[in-house]
Amino acid sequence: MKQIISVLTENRAGVLSRIAGMFSRRGYNIDSLAVGETEDSSISRFTIVTDADEEMLEQILKQLNKMIDTIKVRSLTNEPATIRELLLIKVSADDSNRGVIMDLAATAGAVVVDVSPQTLTLQLCSTPEKTENLRLLCVKYGIKEIVRTGITAMQKGSDVLHK
Amino acid sequence: MKQIISVLTENRAGVLSRIAGMFSRRGYNIDSLAVGETEDSSISRFTIVTDADEEMLEQILKQLNKMIDTIKVRSLTNEPATIRELLLIKVSADDSNRGVIMDLAATAGAVVVDVSPQTLTLQLCSTPEKTENLRLLCVKYGIKEIVRTGITAMQKGSDVLHK
Repeated sequence: MKQIISVLTENRAGVLSRIAGMFSRRGYNIDSLAVGETEDSSISRFTIVTDADEEMLEQILKQLNKMIDTIKVRSLTNEPATIRELLLIKVSADDSNRGVIMDLAATAGAVVVDVSPQTLTLQLCSTPEKTENLRLLCVKYGIKEIVRTGITAMQKGSDVLHK
Repeated sequence: MKQIISVLTENRAGVLSRIAGMFSRRGYNIDSLAVGETEDSSISRFTIVTDADEEMLEQILKQLNKMIDTIKVRSLTNEPATIRELLLIKVSADDSNRGVIMDLAATAGAVVVDVSPQTLTLQLCSTPEKTENLRLLCVKYGIKEIVRTGITAMQKGSDVLHK
């Protein structure tokens, strides 16, 4: 089962290496990872997606909690959360089908961010289901390149992942 | 200087750990990192932002190229590229200022993705300059929580980062 884990850490050298190393040593796979600064630049926030059952998840949370850089760990899998992913997708397009693909993009909520005589690049920031749906819609035109940020998540309501 | 590096790697266990370890051992800091699957699920794409001068950048590119998992490495700093970041920001808001903040969000190109009696959560997918601008605009209302994906980038035009 896909698990979404949010981790607040001190923003210091080697944190990423230590977290990645822990996952690697214990044989836990990381499906996607997004790391960025928070409201406090001395603190980073990791959003990690991993495929794990409940028991494995518990182990991962325990290991993350034990790390010296960790400020707070939380599984967002079973909580109400805003889950988003950013997708950039470059599709083959020429005069014969550019209009069709642009209509499709608009319907899917995507925006065109770049155009060349042979390609269109679309941007969609949405749930993983919707970004995956756009990808599937683009297959028939020929996908030249995809960049995804990895999933990011924030709990809904006024609750926050505190220091 | 902020450098944006795109790396295509085999999607295997331990890649992240090896890349993060290389940066850590050599004392190169990673400002932000976004990792996701590409058009081929056996291949991952890393977008790494690091603060480095030209000489250091060359060393980093060389080290990344030497890694066994690496398929392709490219610096996008000096190339025409679409550079985006996804920001989720939870701001204090009540009946007295919710409307003002929603207007501000709309003007900045952000969308409201969650609302509670005490908070509004905004989503903006844009350039790092514009996401930072939204953050600054929100400071006076009280920022409760921020999640960023880290920067992702794709070269403009029909050119792609090939296998």
